Amino acid sequence: MISRNELKYYSSLSQKKFRESELKFLVEGLKNVEEGLNSHFNCEIILVTFEFAEQHKNIFNHAKKKKIRIEIIRSQDFIRISETKSPQGIAAVFNYAKLNFYPDKTESNILVYLDNISDPGNLGTIIRTCDWFGINEILISKYSVDYLNPKAIRASMGSIFHLYIFEELDTEVLIDLQNRNYKIICSDLDGKNLFDYRFPEKIVLAFSNEAAGPSEAVKKIADDIITIPRIGNAESLNVAIASGIILSKALTNR
Amino acid sequence: MISRNELKYYSSLSQKKFRESELKFLVEGLKNVEEGLNSHFNCEIILVTFEFAEQHKNIFNHAKKKKIRIEIIRSQDFIRISETKSPQGIAAVFNYAKLNFYPDKTESNILVYLDNISDPGNLGTIIRTCDWFGINEILISKYSVDYLNPKAIRASMGSIFHLYIFEELDTEVLIDLQNRNYKIICSDLDGKNLFDYRFPEKIVLAFSNEAAGPSEAVKKIADDIITIPRIGNAESLNVAIASGIILSKALTNR
Repeated sequence: MISRNELKYYSSLSQKKFRESELKFLVEGLKNVEEGLNSHFNCEIILVTFEFAEQHKNIFNHAKKKKIRIEIIRSQDFIRISETKSPQGIAAVFNYAKLNFYPDKTESNILVYLDNISDPGNLGTIIRTCDWFGINEILISKYSVDYLNPKAIRASMGSIFHLYIFEELDTEVLIDLQNRNYKIICSDLDGKNLFDYRFPEKIVLAFSNEAAGPSEAVKKIADDIITIPRIGNAESLNVAIASGIILSKALTNR
Repeated sequence: MISRNELKYYSSLSQKKFRESELKFLVEGLKNVEEGLNSHFNCEIILVTFEFAEQHKNIFNHAKKKKIRIEIIRSQDFIRISETKSPQGIAAVFNYAKLNFYPDKTESNILVYLDNISDPGNLGTIIRTCDWFGINEILISKYSVDYLNPKAIRASMGSIFHLYIFEELDTEVLIDLQNRNYKIICSDLDGKNLFDYRFPEKIVLAFSNEAAGPSEAVKKIADDIITIPRIGNAESLNVAIASGIILSKALTNR
């Protein structure tokens, strides 16, 4: 049995301040929960609705084998912890630790820096794309949305469990990396043509805010600014789309 | 003044069946409304809240010059027509016509076919990316979400007003295009490496459903299947991201 107070406690994890004070976050949906259970993250509890439990009996064996607490709750209670309109009926709470990034310890040739990304769906999608392309470390700037935001987790499709993600950073970290021979590359509307561009060996790709573009601080220290050339009439590309195109080029045409 | 009944009528346009019977759709947000007003689409009415009207007085001159009806409504009424949590306070209703696609009349070398795309955000984002890359004609399959869905419009950032978009199509149109020397190219997990692939002169790029992948019908007639090679651990790429990467490659590396 799960108490009213416990339910209230878990639903509070939709708010950043509670996630940060408790060092816990809640993920929803079978795909995300499974990815979490298969990762090194510690799972505190799995919550399922009666309906979900009926249709996915193996989840109980899975939980039992891993010695994870599992509770069946009513749909109307599930809605209180859920952020989606038509929830699947499974969620899990994981513990996490804040990671420190040490510029002198990274072994990645390509790092990604998220420069004030405010849309959680875009942030999660970029993490998923980074995961596809084998990026290991993602640096997130101070004024970005946090990656444990429920929408960001959902968009990441489990990829938040695969990568090292460092938050609350500022451009100092980029200067530290520059001093270690990384080139900082950001994209803007008036840069070098991406498709003629040859990427240096060690790079930090900075992807910037949807509406504002690169922050002044990033622009000032960038070694190169690149552009995806426009052929048609759209005013801009979605930042997650632009990131995907730049990542694919940076990884395959070096 | 706007009547209760009119408001109810405009709010019904959030549903596909009403859009189709009335041949009207509603767009929200200043960017989308402006794109609509600058396009060849006929605008029936602009609706703004008191607060929006206060801050954007020039919208009235704009409406007057174009002889478009403009009405100020209360915020609590605006919420009834709005699909967003924190609406900007401007919306407009446009007329549209269903377009027929004639495979023998197209002059595009690259066409895009959306194969059962069900997520409106993805569909709108793909339209925006197509617009960026200068695609003129988009073919949408029968079981895709419709592009005048409010979420799709929002994600398109006004690009629905720039392109010719044909809906409710099936794979017959692809066969007609094949007979006119177009190559049908779809993407799947086990195709040719996109980054080694040389695109033919005349192509139809088929982008498929997020979860299901290419439909059987598309797979059967495809001339080539391509893959964005995976380096890391994500199970899949978001379809809008994959489309962006494929489009950028198809357009720049021919």
